[in-house]
Amino acid sequence: MRTEKINIAIAGFGNIGSYFYKTVEKNKIDISIKTGKIPFIKYICAKNLKKKRKIKIPIKKWIKNIKSLTKKKDVDIIIELIGGSEGPAKKLVFESLKNKKHVITANKALMAKYGDQLASLAEKNNVNLEYEASVAGGIPIIRSIKEGLIANKINKIYGILNGTTNFILSSMEYTKKPFAEVLEKAKKLGFAESNPISDINGGDSAAKLRILSSIAFNKNISKNKILTEGIQNINLTDILHAKSLGYKIKLLSISEIKSKKLMERVHPCLIKNTSRIANIDGVLNAVIVDALPIGRSILQGEGAGPGATSSALISDLCSILHGNIRYPFGISSNLRKKVSKFNILNHVCSSYLRIEAKDMPGVLSSITKIFTRNKISIKNLIQRPDKRNKKATIIIITHENIEKNYNNLILNLTKNKFVLNKPTFIRIEKV
Amino acid sequence: MRTEKINIAIAGFGNIGSYFYKTVEKNKIDISIKTGKIPFIKYICAKNLKKKRKIKIPIKKWIKNIKSLTKKKDVDIIIELIGGSEGPAKKLVFESLKNKKHVITANKALMAKYGDQLASLAEKNNVNLEYEASVAGGIPIIRSIKEGLIANKINKIYGILNGTTNFILSSMEYTKKPFAEVLEKAKKLGFAESNPISDINGGDSAAKLRILSSIAFNKNISKNKILTEGIQNINLTDILHAKSLGYKIKLLSISEIKSKKLMERVHPCLIKNTSRIANIDGVLNAVIVDALPIGRSILQGEGAGPGATSSALISDLCSILHGNIRYPFGISSNLRKKVSKFNILNHVCSSYLRIEAKDMPGVLSSITKIFTRNKISIKNLIQRPDKRNKKATIIIITHENIEKNYNNLILNLTKNKFVLNKPTFIRIEKV
Repeated sequence: MRTEKINIAIAGFGNIGSYFYKTVEKNKIDISIKTGKIPFIKYICAKNLKKKRKIKIPIKKWIKNIKSLTKKKDVDIIIELIGGSEGPAKKLVFESLKNKKHVITANKALMAKYGDQLASLAEKNNVNLEYEASVAGGIPIIRSIKEGLIANKINKIYGILNGTTNFILSSMEYTKKPFAEVLEKAKKLGFAESNPISDINGGDSAAKLRILSSIAFNKNISKNKILTEGIQNINLTDILHAKSLGYKIKLLSISEIKSKKLMERVHPCLIKNTSRIANIDGVLNAVIVDALPIGRSILQGEGAGPGATSSALISDLCSILHGNIRYPFGISSNLRKKVSKFNILNHVCSSYLRIEAKDMPGVLSSITKIFTRNKISIKNLIQRPDKRNKKATIIIITHENIEKNYNNLILNLTKNKFVLNKPTFIRIEKV
Repeated sequence: MRTEKINIAIAGFGNIGSYFYKTVEKNKIDISIKTGKIPFIKYICAKNLKKKRKIKIPIKKWIKNIKSLTKKKDVDIIIELIGGSEGPAKKLVFESLKNKKHVITANKALMAKYGDQLASLAEKNNVNLEYEASVAGGIPIIRSIKEGLIANKINKIYGILNGTTNFILSSMEYTKKPFAEVLEKAKKLGFAESNPISDINGGDSAAKLRILSSIAFNKNISKNKILTEGIQNINLTDILHAKSLGYKIKLLSISEIKSKKLMERVHPCLIKNTSRIANIDGVLNAVIVDALPIGRSILQGEGAGPGATSSALISDLCSILHGNIRYPFGISSNLRKKVSKFNILNHVCSSYLRIEAKDMPGVLSSITKIFTRNKISIKNLIQRPDKRNKKATIIIITHENIEKNYNNLILNLTKNKFVLNKPTFIRIEKV
């Protein structure tokens, strides 16, 4: 039996691209044994052909003009590793699908923004659109939802989807060093990009969450404004206070169905330090799926880096080589439903607040009055005076209440004459 | 477009069978949306047709004669839920594959013993043989190795594969009650069968491990004698001593490639209580995969019960409905290699020993001499005298050594005149 050769083009040839290339070359025979097809990397498209690279690529593979790639008759699969939701990546993926090429992408921004249109296009043209690497790196979460957990009705999916921020938070805890210092270290170690803003502010996690919700709940990708808060305002003191109270601070991405509506949110959370994901530290990712009939499943592993990403890309590649066309989101695009949004102002949780206030008589009574006025009940209050600076740090753990009341509380506290700046507010999540 | 109907027969209709039936009936439309085929449960075969059941099954579905099932022209998929490596289950699965029916089984004993022959037969007849439910319940570990982690070279796969023993060990720790009492409670709660011997003695875990090793390393199922020790000799005192030393006791199933040879073992382990799987308690299962390029991945979830098992069975069903024939073990049977066995006597670990001895002068020196003679170095020794009974409990943590020396050590200790009975020996595992 002659094994069929499948031609692949890679667009974008940085760290990930070259690692993927090497891994495919190395495992060619293994892949063909498992899938019955031989993957052949025919073209590589890079911005800068003259850049010095560690691996030698035969000259005839190089292509400068990305547009020409999608029109080539001898390309079956295009792998998009350019990144960004607009510009060349967007053009490439749309054009490739239009020209009936299978597409594999690691681009969460693109999928979160145009995933619905791209999926329809892929289905119309009977090609695959695969994007396992776009969420949670090497953890095969997309494939698991679509296949391993296919029997289940998921009601909540959440986890740690950003390795950079998880590294920063756990390093702050273990080294007791402040945010800025730890961020610099993360950059040096290659765990944070030179411009890490979309990691830090939660934007990266939110894009991944939109993709996950969509597959988990069989809905269109939500265009809702997601409650997105990053870790830029988490101080070392919050991490240490949380620890002394038996909590850890994690940036969680949470998507759930509440009263038949979708609630998506990305924000730092206090979670019990005995909880399952409290010890997922460093650059690790974890995804928790609550579903019926299976109960709770947790998948954890490397969330980023060339190895993990290549593992996901190759699982996509093998799925295509296996030769079955699947719906990109598990079901046909015209059966995916629109999502209605749960009003986040009705979200219920208990919370942690850190209030920096003047240290003088009457402060505590003035502050606690604001809580009473907003119907928020205090469970635990710790006051730490700082006599030298004539100020005090007040840590409060509240009983459960709704988001709306917390918003008012913080507005009122910020305006209070004793309070020095906007209080730090972190939701407590039961996980 | 008319959606094709696929006929299914279920053989064995206990808890799992009836839960599976209900779940398929309830999710029929969902399944057909996702796979393009409608699953139709045509026949149900049970030992006792007159048994009172909670669900009503139309009379024409019932079949008493299991042999006739495999010959029916109007059956496409047979689901074997009878259990046991021999007898009717074995006959049914072999006959079904011979008659070109797809087979789904939850039967680890059968797969561990005849998996190779069954896979060859399925490949020859171009049908699927699926067995996701046979290992780790609802955790989609088999599908993940074959698809999500397909790019990876696995060097070690291990975990907690038996929910019953994990429940017993963690209950002993939390309730401080002895083995026998906790086992009775487990039976009452439905977490242990009335005859739990194959769970308790590690046999169940060993069967699952054989299946996992085979898929993870692309090898034939090993016929080796696996080092198998159960939890029947773990005393509450061991659990409490371990805890005070910073460890937990878990029954682990471990498979790894050492010097190109396969080492498989199932035995209780002391693991650091800070390790990732230390807090996998109760009936939960977890599987850890160490592989390149992905690094370490952990999957955890419900290891048993009708919900978890049905989730796995339906993922198998959907894979067949999707319509692609795959190699049961990921690669063609004639490419799977024979395994050579790592000599377990050369396995290196540190260990925990509990020695019950007479409390009289000279005992400790006599015992430590035996350690010296066997070249085993002591890291930590705790002596707890029990004056009333004129005995003492000696707890020893050793430095690393080889299995062979430990075997001799225990022989020598058991023969020593001061030692009251065979010491308890538990390996310490770095996880």
